[in-house]
Amino acid sequence: MAPEHIVSSYNDELVALAQTIAEMGGQVEVAIENGTKALLKLDRELADLTIIADQRIDDMQRKIDDMAVSMIARRQPMASDLRSIITAIHVASDLERVGDMAKQLARRSLKIEGLNLQPTFYNGVRNMTALVLRQIKESLDAYSSRDAEGAIQVCNRDDEVDAMYTSLFRELLTYMMEDPRNITPCTHLLFCAKSLERIGDHATNIAERAYYLQTGKQLSSDVEELQRTQIKA
Amino acid sequence: MAPEHIVSSYNDELVALAQTIAEMGGQVEVAIENGTKALLKLDRELADLTIIADQRIDDMQRKIDDMAVSMIARRQPMASDLRSIITAIHVASDLERVGDMAKQLARRSLKIEGLNLQPTFYNGVRNMTALVLRQIKESLDAYSSRDAEGAIQVCNRDDEVDAMYTSLFRELLTYMMEDPRNITPCTHLLFCAKSLERIGDHATNIAERAYYLQTGKQLSSDVEELQRTQIKA
Repeated sequence: MAPEHIVSSYNDELVALAQTIAEMGGQVEVAIENGTKALLKLDRELADLTIIADQRIDDMQRKIDDMAVSMIARRQPMASDLRSIITAIHVASDLERVGDMAKQLARRSLKIEGLNLQPTFYNGVRNMTALVLRQIKESLDAYSSRDAEGAIQVCNRDDEVDAMYTSLFRELLTYMMEDPRNITPCTHLLFCAKSLERIGDHATNIAERAYYLQTGKQLSSDVEELQRTQIKA
Repeated sequence: MAPEHIVSSYNDELVALAQTIAEMGGQVEVAIENGTKALLKLDRELADLTIIADQRIDDMQRKIDDMAVSMIARRQPMASDLRSIITAIHVASDLERVGDMAKQLARRSLKIEGLNLQPTFYNGVRNMTALVLRQIKESLDAYSSRDAEGAIQVCNRDDEVDAMYTSLFRELLTYMMEDPRNITPCTHLLFCAKSLERIGDHATNIAERAYYLQTGKQLSSDVEELQRTQIKA
């Protein structure tokens, strides 16, 4: 047996790793909120802030990587702990990409400034943002509390995200067909919708990893994947 | 010192890990080629094959993860070997996402079938595919041969990918403005262009990791990132 203070310090490190992921998750949620707000209000200052904040999210991913590698190297964890540390690396990687999506939302706001925008264009984007924010929050909750049931719910709700995306895609196409002046702004909004849909996918990834950590089983079978492939827009 | 046969077997495992990544890289390159071919020729059978093949790419990612975790658990590698094993996990994750992009290209071909398509719409997509395929190939070469100079070249060429994407984006918008019947097919092609641009980003990620493994330094400084952020479409 290792002396008590070493075990305690190892636990401290595991807790610190979990806290750093939670902190990164918090920053990513703020980035989604700010990225969308910059888009909906054409707020150039908030857009710039969101783009710069993404650098901090990238730095946090690197920090989590380094913490994980250092823990593995020094502590030589057992298989189950090792699996959870590797999962932390994967979750941080998903969060980093969600941060990228938020940055892209902010960037789009700089592009659509001055274009022919109508408030109705935005409704779908606003609703989708609320839904994917919930997905990210609940996937991180499922991950931090090892809640397999919560993870399943996040995965099931991904169909809702996809349905909302498909409906928004069609809606934006109709605006484009109505008036050629709508083509450029609505094209940018289509990409925003796609970024939000991808954020939903990352939430599902995190939930699937949470489920696997808790149960040792893969949540999505090959059959489900094929079905999802065929349904998705 | 560990007995000779154990050292040799550890090397065998490192080689096997590298080979598995090379194999996954090969499958991903085929997926990009087939996904684009399915798109350009509206080949439904090839599209279905590409979608199904993505499942194998996902399985390979899981296999690489398991190999890496098992090696770390049993061999307790030193810091430098550990860093290279963790990098293998990241590279596999990038390749898995490139596989997803290829699947999305294949899916789009099923969606644009029967729409008002003109051969000129396709030129840009064809050229971009050639460029990003080269980027993926050369990033994997730089990774497998630890070639820092090659990695820098891949990263520098990402600006070319981005420029090609921006130009294609504008070109497709003009077709959409010319004739409303072009809106739906060209919107799908816009997303294809975006998928290709993202494949280019993943090639850059792989090259950056190759560079870091070889030199211990980050290739992209914060300043470069900010510049890229502002230039990109």
